[in-house]
Formats: sequence, structure tokens, C-alpha cells
Amino acid sequence: MNLALIGFGNVGRSLARLLCRKRREFPFRITGIHTLRHGTALDPNGLGENPSFGPPAASIADFLDASNADGAVELTTLNPFTGEPAISHIRAGIARGMHVVTANKGPIAQAFSTLRAEAEAAQVQFRFESTVMDGAPVFNLWRSNLPGVQVLGFAGALNSTSKVVIETMEQGGSFEDGLAAARSLGITEADGAYDAEGWDSAAKTAALANVLLDAHTTTQQVPTRGITRLTPERVQAIVRQGKTVRLISRGRRTKAGVSLRVRAEVLERSDILASGRGTSNVILFHTDLMGTFGSVSVNPGVEQTAYGVFSDLVSLLPDR
Amino acid sequence: MNLALIGFGNVGRSLARLLCRKRREFPFRITGIHTLRHGTALDPNGLGENPSFGPPAASIADFLDASNADGAVELTTLNPFTGEPAISHIRAGIARGMHVVTANKGPIAQAFSTLRAEAEAAQVQFRFESTVMDGAPVFNLWRSNLPGVQVLGFAGALNSTSKVVIETMEQGGSFEDGLAAARSLGITEADGAYDAEGWDSAAKTAALANVLLDAHTTTQQVPTRGITRLTPERVQAIVRQGKTVRLISRGRRTKAGVSLRVRAEVLERSDILASGRGTSNVILFHTDLMGTFGSVSVNPGVEQTAYGVFSDLVSLLPDR
Repeated sequence: MNLALIGFGNVGRSLARLLCRKRREFPFRITGIHTLRHGTALDPNGLGENPSFGPPAASIADFLDASNADGAVELTTLNPFTGEPAISHIRAGIARGMHVVTANKGPIAQAFSTLRAEAEAAQVQFRFESTVMDGAPVFNLWRSNLPGVQVLGFAGALNSTSKVVIETMEQGGSFEDGLAAARSLGITEADGAYDAEGWDSAAKTAALANVLLDAHTTTQQVPTRGITRLTPERVQAIVRQGKTVRLISRGRRTKAGVSLRVRAEVLERSDILASGRGTSNVILFHTDLMGTFGSVSVNPGVEQTAYGVFSDLVSLLPDR
Repeated sequence: MNLALIGFGNVGRSLARLLCRKRREFPFRITGIHTLRHGTALDPNGLGENPSFGPPAASIADFLDASNADGAVELTTLNPFTGEPAISHIRAGIARGMHVVTANKGPIAQAFSTLRAEAEAAQVQFRFESTVMDGAPVFNLWRSNLPGVQVLGFAGALNSTSKVVIETMEQGGSFEDGLAAARSLGITEADGAYDAEGWDSAAKTAALANVLLDAHTTTQQVPTRGITRLTPERVQAIVRQGKTVRLISRGRRTKAGVSLRVRAEVLERSDILASGRGTSNVILFHTDLMGTFGSVSVNPGVEQTAYGVFSDLVSLLPDR
């Protein structure tokens, strides 16, 4: 299967390495890579892990047409509030009859039902495992393993930056020290405001709600409060009570549709949602037939995000 | 698809209710039920949730031959150290060209590689999702969702009785109070020794090792120490250090094969393996490509065990 990569940052490079390493077992070939920064690389025989870039294609449409790919992998830098340019890239792939895999949560948060309908009409697959909990199976778990079960709701500690900031304040550091620690781990961008204000969690909440609760929502519609009002004094007072704080995403079905929210919640130390250190994430699903269960991901990194994309790609292969 | 149930205790009854409830979407029909206590029920048009039992068939072979079933579901009471009579029942199903699903961990702990080989030779499926973590996807997760990933090891808090006993002692009760609490929750049998001495955890450890680490081991080969030496005084001293105790199953690949053990371990309150109350279970997988991740199951009951069997059955349907 020939692949066209749109975007080639840390996740894209890690994915390229993984595809090379697993080439014998999983017959993928990267025939095109397009980036704003480096330009465009094309080779119908397959690009290596360190491709040579030429001038950029005039447009994503031109790039995809030239790539001779069966699948498009969308990994660009995202505007989380619009989902662009990722949504347009995904549409361009679907319109050309390509399967599309993305690690960008914006399109799932902002335009899932439309993109799903377009993919169905074009008879192609659209996959997005890495958008929540990195590569740990979440969406593919529901796609493959839980026949007949309805998700009634979910609760998750899905944002790593806020967790690192809270842990830093618990240990006596300032809010800014915490953001610096998160930046040094490579898990937050620029000023970290998007994470600290809860918008990363809100986007994941909207994505989960759109896919698992049949919601038609967007990031901006999720009632969201981040951790920016938390102070080291308040966090340490909570620690003295034997408790901790986590930025929690919650969603549940209601008679009117769905109820969603993102809040800093005070939790018992033994609460599953509070467990795990560093960048670990947790999600719990409340269901009709399977009670409450969920997934944990311990200190995931860019390799795990790349693996999630890889697992989506493998699911596109015939006979998988 | 016609099903023959061997055993009709709490899990079997819950499964029969679930199959009835989901009959329109998932076309299963229970055409035979065989139990030691109630006798045998047969109806080629399908038995209801409350079948009428006649005299028992002369043997499991006779029962399966009379059931006209495509799949056998093994749910009998188990001798955990031999895996019998479940192993013989599974063999009888496979030998008749039936797919087999079991919720009994004994056969997976004691005879997995043999049973897998027999099923492959007979071109039938053999499934056992509910044997570890009840219905939460564990084995089916690895079967469907993690292409190319190797399990390097695992760690799990997989035994509910020991957890309830430890929590009882943390709150000032005795060991026996804890066992009584576990019995009242319906999660432990008779005297609870099998759980407290660690053998339930050892059987799950052996099952996980056989399936995920390519081991050829048995319950008895897992170095096992239970929680029987723990006293309320010791448990409370650990609580005063801000920590807790859990009966932990561990396995990992080594150059020589696998290293396995079951031990009561002192853990931080914030450790994922210590999280969750009551009958909650946790498992973590250490892997090559996907780092460390895992599953949690919060207070599972018999309905979740039945659901695990149901999900296995659905995976046997054509086009699933």
C-alpha cells in the first residue's frame, strides 16, 4: 500500500522509521511526503527514512495527485479551534478515493460526522486512533472488541501537561516551573496555554463524544475550565488532605443528547483517574453491558503516537 | 449459530439472558445445555432463558453430538490445578469440529499450547477472553488491535478477593473478616484459600504467559506467595507510610524463556496497580513498540464475565 504523508515532524519521522522497520511484515511504501517547511519529496519506489525534499507542490491536491498513494496520513500542525488545515487535507484525500489516517484531534473534534459521511460515500476508511491516549487502543477497541455495548459516558485524565504542572506544584514549584517541565519533556507547545486552559482536554472530550456518544459537538461547545486558577498553596493544601488534583474530561449521554465538561477535580490518591505519574493518561468508559472499564497509558511518547497511526494503517490492509 | 452450553451457573444464566436480549442483532441460538446438577436440556429451535432440564446425557460426547451446535461454551466448575474437566470438554468440542469458548482459566493455564494446536488442526476457533480481567478486552485486544507489537512483560492486580481482604485489614478488620466480605460479594468460593494463597493469581499469570509470552508453563510452575502471612498490624503499618499492598502477578520474557511470579507487593497509593477499590482489576503490558499501557476493570461482576464470553462468540460469526 502506497502512502502520502502530509506533515513530517516528530510523529511523521517516527512513523517513517517504524514503517521501514516493519516493512517485511507490513507492506507499506511512503511514496510522497509534503511539508510546509522542507518542501515535497516524491518517489514511486518508496522514500527512505531520510528523504530528500524538493520544492513544495503547489497545493495539497497537486501533491496527492502526484503521490500515487492509496492512503493519506495527515500529521500537520493544527489550529485546534478550527481543525484546519487538517480537515481540508483529509477531505482532499477522501475526494481522491484515498483512505485517510490522522493523528490530529481537531478534525474529530470539529467535523467528525461530516468527514465520516464523506468517507462512507467515497467507500474509503477514515481512522484516528492516535488522537486520544496516543497509540493505546481506544477508538479501535470500540471498533473491534465490544460488539453490542453502548457507551453511556466516559471520564478521563487525558492531558499530560496539566498533570506535570500539578505534580510540579505539589512538590513546591510554581505554575511556570510546571509549564517549563512540560516543555522540557516535549509534551507542550510554546506558552502551554492551550493545555493549561483545558482546550486540549476539551478537544479530546469533543472527539470522544462525537465518535462514542453520537454527539455533534465541537471543542468550543465543551464547558471548560483549565488549571490556570490553581496555585501551589491550594495544590499543597489538597496534598495535605491526602488528595490530588487532575484535569478531568467527562461526557455522558442524557435525554437531551450529551453532557460534557472539562474541570480540575480533587480526587482521592487511590482513584484510578489520579493514578500514574508524569505523562500517563487514563480513560474510563461507563457502559450498559460491560460496566466500567478503561485504558491506561504510562508515560507515552512520540513513538506511541506514531504506533497508533501505524495500527490504523495496518487495519487498512486487505484481510486485516 | 447454534450453541451448546456445558455448565449453567451464574455466568451461564447471565450469558443466556444476554443472548436472548441481543438475539436480533446477533443470531445465536442455545440448542443444548448440560449440567451435572440439573441434567440436560435440548431444543433444536432454541432454549429460552429458563429451560426445562431432562435427565443428563450419558457423557459430554453424547451431549455435544445431540446438541446440533456449531459452538461449545465451557462454563463448568473448575479444578484449577488440573484444568479438568474443562480441558476434556474443550477437546470434545474441538474434536467434533465445533468452535469453543471458555471462561475457565484452568485450560489456558494448564494446556493452552496443546488446545491451540488441536483447534488449528481442526480449523475451529478457540476463545477465552473472560479468563483474565473478566470481560474487559485483554486477549482479544492483542488479537485485533496491536499488530506488530511484542509483549515484553506484564504486571497485574488480577485477584479481587485478596484486594477485598487487604482493604478490610486496612480498615481494622481481621483476615477472616476480609474473606467473609469477599464471600458476601460472591467473588470467592468456600474457604477462599485458593485466592488468598495466590493460586487464582498464579493461574492467571500462567494463562497470560502462555498466550502472550509464548510460555509453556502451568499454574504450579509460577513461584507464588499469597497474602496469608499479612496481618492487620502489618497492613496498617504500611498504610501509615502512605502506601498499600496488592497481590501482584508479574511476567517477563528472559533469555532463558520467561520469568513469572505472584507476590504481595507494597505499592505507592498513586501506583496504577494499586488504584481502584473493591473488586477492580488492573493489568499493564510492557511492550517493544507501544511502551507501557494497560486495562482497568472497575468492580466487574458476573455480567461482565458473561459479556466476555458473548464477545468471543460474536467474533466467531462470519464477517466479524
